[in-house]
Amino acid sequence: LSTHKTIEKDNTGFSNLSTHTNTRMVNADGSINVVKIGQSFFDRYSLYRVLIVTSWAKFILFILTVYLAFNVLFAVMYYLIGVEHLGGVNFSSEADAFLECFFFSSQTFTTVGYGRISPIGLGVNIIASLEAFVGVLIIAVFTGLLYGRFSRPVVKIIKSSNAVITNHKNGKALMFRIVNAKNSVLSDAEVEIRLSILKEDSSGIMKRRYYELKTEIKKITLFTLSWTVVHPITEDSPFWEMTEADMEKSDAEIIILFRAFEDTFSQNVNSWLSYKNHEIVWNAKFKSIIDYQDNTVSVDLSRIDAYEII
Amino acid sequence: LSTHKTIEKDNTGFSNLSTHTNTRMVNADGSINVVKIGQSFFDRYSLYRVLIVTSWAKFILFILTVYLAFNVLFAVMYYLIGVEHLGGVNFSSEADAFLECFFFSSQTFTTVGYGRISPIGLGVNIIASLEAFVGVLIIAVFTGLLYGRFSRPVVKIIKSSNAVITNHKNGKALMFRIVNAKNSVLSDAEVEIRLSILKEDSSGIMKRRYYELKTEIKKITLFTLSWTVVHPITEDSPFWEMTEADMEKSDAEIIILFRAFEDTFSQNVNSWLSYKNHEIVWNAKFKSIIDYQDNTVSVDLSRIDAYEII
Amino acid sequence: LSTHKTIEKDNTGFSNLSTHTNTRMVNADGSINVVKIGQSFFDRYSLYRVLIVTSWAKFILFILTVYLAFNVLFAVMYYLIGVEHLGGVNFSSEADAFLECFFFSSQTFTTVGYGRISPIGLGVNIIASLEAFVGVLIIAVFTGLLYGRFSRPVVKIIKSSNAVITNHKNGKALMFRIVNAKNSVLSDAEVEIRLSILKEDSSGIMKRRYYELKTEIKKITLFTLSWTVVHPITEDSPFWEMTEADMEKSDAEIIILFRAFEDTFSQNVNSWLSYKNHEIVWNAKFKSIIDYQDNTVSVDLSRIDAYEII
Amino acid sequence: LSTHKTIEKDNTGFSNLSTHTNTRMVNADGSINVVKIGQSFFDRYSLYRVLIVTSWAKFILFILTVYLAFNVLFAVMYYLIGVEHLGGVNFSSEADAFLECFFFSSQTFTTVGYGRISPIGLGVNIIASLEAFVGVLIIAVFTGLLYGRFSRPVVKIIKSSNAVITNHKNGKALMFRIVNAKNSVLSDAEVEIRLSILKEDSSGIMKRRYYELKTEIKKITLFTLSWTVVHPITEDSPFWEMTEADMEKSDAEIIILFRAFEDTFSQNVNSWLSYKNHEIVWNAKFKSIIDYQDNTVSVDLSRIDAYEII
Repeated sequence: LSTHKTIEKDNTGFSNLSTHTNTRMVNADGSINVVKIGQSFFDRYSLYRVLIVTSWAKFILFILTVYLAFNVLFAVMYYLIGVEHLGGVNFSSEADAFLECFFFSSQTFTTVGYGRISPIGLGVNIIASLEAFVGVLIIAVFTGLLYGRFSRPVVKIIKSSNAVITNHKNGKALMFRIVNAKNSVLSDAEVEIRLSILKEDSSGIMKRRYYELKTEIKKITLFTLSWTVVHPITEDSPFWEMTEADMEKSDAEIIILFRAFEDTFSQNVNSWLSYKNHEIVWNAKFKSIIDYQDNTVSVDLSRIDAYEII
Repeated sequence: LSTHKTIEKDNTGFSNLSTHTNTRMVNADGSINVVKIGQSFFDRYSLYRVLIVTSWAKFILFILTVYLAFNVLFAVMYYLIGVEHLGGVNFSSEADAFLECFFFSSQTFTTVGYGRISPIGLGVNIIASLEAFVGVLIIAVFTGLLYGRFSRPVVKIIKSSNAVITNHKNGKALMFRIVNAKNSVLSDAEVEIRLSILKEDSSGIMKRRYYELKTEIKKITLFTLSWTVVHPITEDSPFWEMTEADMEKSDAEIIILFRAFEDTFSQNVNSWLSYKNHEIVWNAKFKSIIDYQDNTVSVDLSRIDAYEII
Repeated sequence: LSTHKTIEKDNTGFSNLSTHTNTRMVNADGSINVVKIGQSFFDRYSLYRVLIVTSWAKFILFILTVYLAFNVLFAVMYYLIGVEHLGGVNFSSEADAFLECFFFSSQTFTTVGYGRISPIGLGVNIIASLEAFVGVLIIAVFTGLLYGRFSRPVVKIIKSSNAVITNHKNGKALMFRIVNAKNSVLSDAEVEIRLSILKEDSSGIMKRRYYELKTEIKKITLFTLSWTVVHPITEDSPFWEMTEADMEKSDAEIIILFRAFEDTFSQNVNSWLSYKNHEIVWNAKFKSIIDYQDNTVSVDLSRIDAYEII
Repeated sequence: LSTHKTIEKDNTGFSNLSTHTNTRMVNADGSINVVKIGQSFFDRYSLYRVLIVTSWAKFILFILTVYLAFNVLFAVMYYLIGVEHLGGVNFSSEADAFLECFFFSSQTFTTVGYGRISPIGLGVNIIASLEAFVGVLIIAVFTGLLYGRFSRPVVKIIKSSNAVITNHKNGKALMFRIVNAKNSVLSDAEVEIRLSILKEDSSGIMKRRYYELKTEIKKITLFTLSWTVVHPITEDSPFWEMTEADMEKSDAEIIILFRAFEDTFSQNVNSWLSYKNHEIVWNAKFKSIIDYQDNTVSVDLSRIDAYEII
């Protein structure tokens, strides 16, 4: 296996990894498959970051829980000070009395303050005055979280499920196809491709090595159609003279960093993609997903995976 | 037609388009003329993005509708539980009763909570407590949307309606003029120009080709006056030896990516512009739009289109 | 006057300016001295931008006016519908009645809603319900404006009032001194210097020309002390062989673009500075403004202008 | 001591510092050890910046103080106008009367407005109307501050407490280890290293000099594991032929600027690190902190400092 002309790159950030196999650095969803240990949960995570990236269901559950918890907390305080310091309450049982405390609490927390129930006396007034302020601040935090969730620049790059190895300019090339799933405008889109692969060294031992995969086009000005990224398998490619059987044993992972500038929000966005060796199809080529109607070009995202064997 | 010295660029992101004609990639308003199909509305659009870029009229209609819808929803709930659980209501008909529910609902949603009407009993109290919280969150979302709309870095580049082909340094040049319509300061403004054009190949067939158009000056430090961008039609230009008649048949589109740094908000901004072949005027030159008064330079935007035939 | 070796740059963005004199492109406060005409106020300005960059006094006046105007507007509506539809009002004159409407309006707008006065009947309820919602939205806009004003990355670069021409490495150099006035950390600070100057051409006519002024150091990693920017007056400098008398007639303006990365808010920031010919002092050098106390270095900003004649 | 081949860099921004010793430019916590004098507190600091970077304890103390101060201020105003203009108050002593004013004030400031106490008459109504508006704006400012604190891109780079000098490729190298303490994804991480050191000049006097330290790898694509930065001590290194004893007298400080792109919030982040000469351990090497479990790679942050003497 001649690899003396390939460009071995050790700037992936992975190069101190051993020959351990079956590990995927970048998961199918673009997240990174590395765990950090040796420190507390709060040192590892920023609570804000967790609440921004979590699902909407979990986020809403979280804020409802906070709302409920604060209301119960303050309701208990009002109840302990004595329900008789709440003017206008109306109850026939201790449970009812607590409920009146609870609803007075929620009216204070949200600052709706109907006033049927109102605080009388120093203790309850201090607590109510504090709760209204705490409520206002918690709501401020929720406002910030909601804005943070909405305004985060989201780029959703859809990749073809498979990369293909196909004929290309009197040789072979590895290709995969990406498309911007959103109707946003991405400018100056570029890809940087790294290969992590097991290769036999001179003494026949499999060792993990890292390469940069060169592409015909590294950057496109306007990423609005689909983009078939092409890595020509020339002499300086680590895939040069590699067979389908070699690939199977290689535990290869192709790691792609996609970068672009999102025009609407004027922000740079990054996205990680990855193909494992079993996701590479030999002797196939992608079918076009671009159609023309009248004066408009259309891209059919549902056909992104479509290829044909050649 | 000698094109062997031109620089053909395939990094526009359009190069897999066929020879289909009359299609404009970039619309006159700077939006991109590509449609994505094969996925649901919600996958294609981010609701936040839609609400940020839509017109103010549609945005206000949207938030009023949300406000009304929530009020009706909660009013129905109060009405179903029973208007007798709302203390202080005052009605002589079922319609009046529902209206009292509706206005109680709006007083709760906005947290104004006058208190003439106030919730009594478990059911209504739970709903009211929920509505006040939902109201607070919806208002938080509106706050974020309003901020997002206002704070979006808006660069408004006005281009001359026509590009011209004029005499320039013993030859010809294609020129167009741009100006920053806002009184903001743009630093490090640069243009990148691509040409999409039909050209006859050796066998006489028209094929779509892509070129980079070089400019005399690619980047200016301070974009505060008007900028006449100059593409000299030298031997390596795709317009070399092209006649007005050739241009008419070419289905050419000049696509311009404008980039700059907006000083006030410290953000990079992008803008797309485009000229079709019928918008190019031969043998014309732009008239100056810069005047001097005392110690000030002024730019007259109303004269941006002004040119004279030479 | 030998200028054949100088580097003439036409990428300032000013090069289509004539030989008009006494015009300053960049004002002493860093703003740009260009006026745009030929379009309406609203096309030229973004209201958001104006409200972000205006003084605090004007901003507070603006929001108080908006608050007052809305309250008067709604008060008039309540008054016209009839004060008898406001439950709990208490008045002995028409003026008192209007005041009750006004204060009810402000209680609704701010959502304080005490409830002593409360809406009764369809008309007033609809208006009140609308006012509470409008109030909530206006407050949302104010929240966004306040955040926008606070969070705008502010870099305040103080420059020495004068640039000096001094001895430097067996020759002369033009120097000026800048310092970051804030206690923030600026990384990767760089300057780009342009000269706009009247020069005699071969036929003795004064023409405005543009040059780039080279500096010994263009970029510093950490801009935390003062930075004396040095332009060596070598053979390829436009100041080569220029005398103090030449300078006086030159109508020269040195325009400096300062760029840096602000660490706390992770943003790139730009700042414009300028020196006119009469602000250049010949045969002077700056005095140090750096002191050492124990283990700390201190920079004395009050001495930034200090120079001595040599 | 041969230094003629080293690369002396004067673009650190520190080069006008004298030979003063024991001064650390970058503190252990990454803050910069420079003080600015000669201007007022408010010119030096932006209040927003101070409130963003201060601790949570101080921030909460600040906002509670503001809340209390405004409530007392307005309470005094209501009390001076006369408690009889507050309808519904209930008091038996002057102290009680003031407390009623205070709680009415807090109900107005937070817009909770229960309404048991409500303003009657022109004076109190004007003050209350103003307080509600001021309250709303102060809360808006708090909302912005809370969002600003949460959303600030925080990168927490943990460095090994010591740098080591170890064997490397038939020579020596200076190494230190960094890791991203958070579970965020950092792309395109790079380091820039400067050395500030006292060196004997030809006449035997110790002078402070500045160098750039070259690294084997300057930039890594994905910074998710630990990164051992390697500066090979070749002939062009300022450490060439330096002994442990020389190092002790050198007052050296290695200053590291770390830059990366944070994927979640799409922002560039900077971080400063520093090692003083006494933090450099000779003839030691770092122990690995990477483990493999099933299909996952883990980094143990608690072992970042671990090295062994060789």
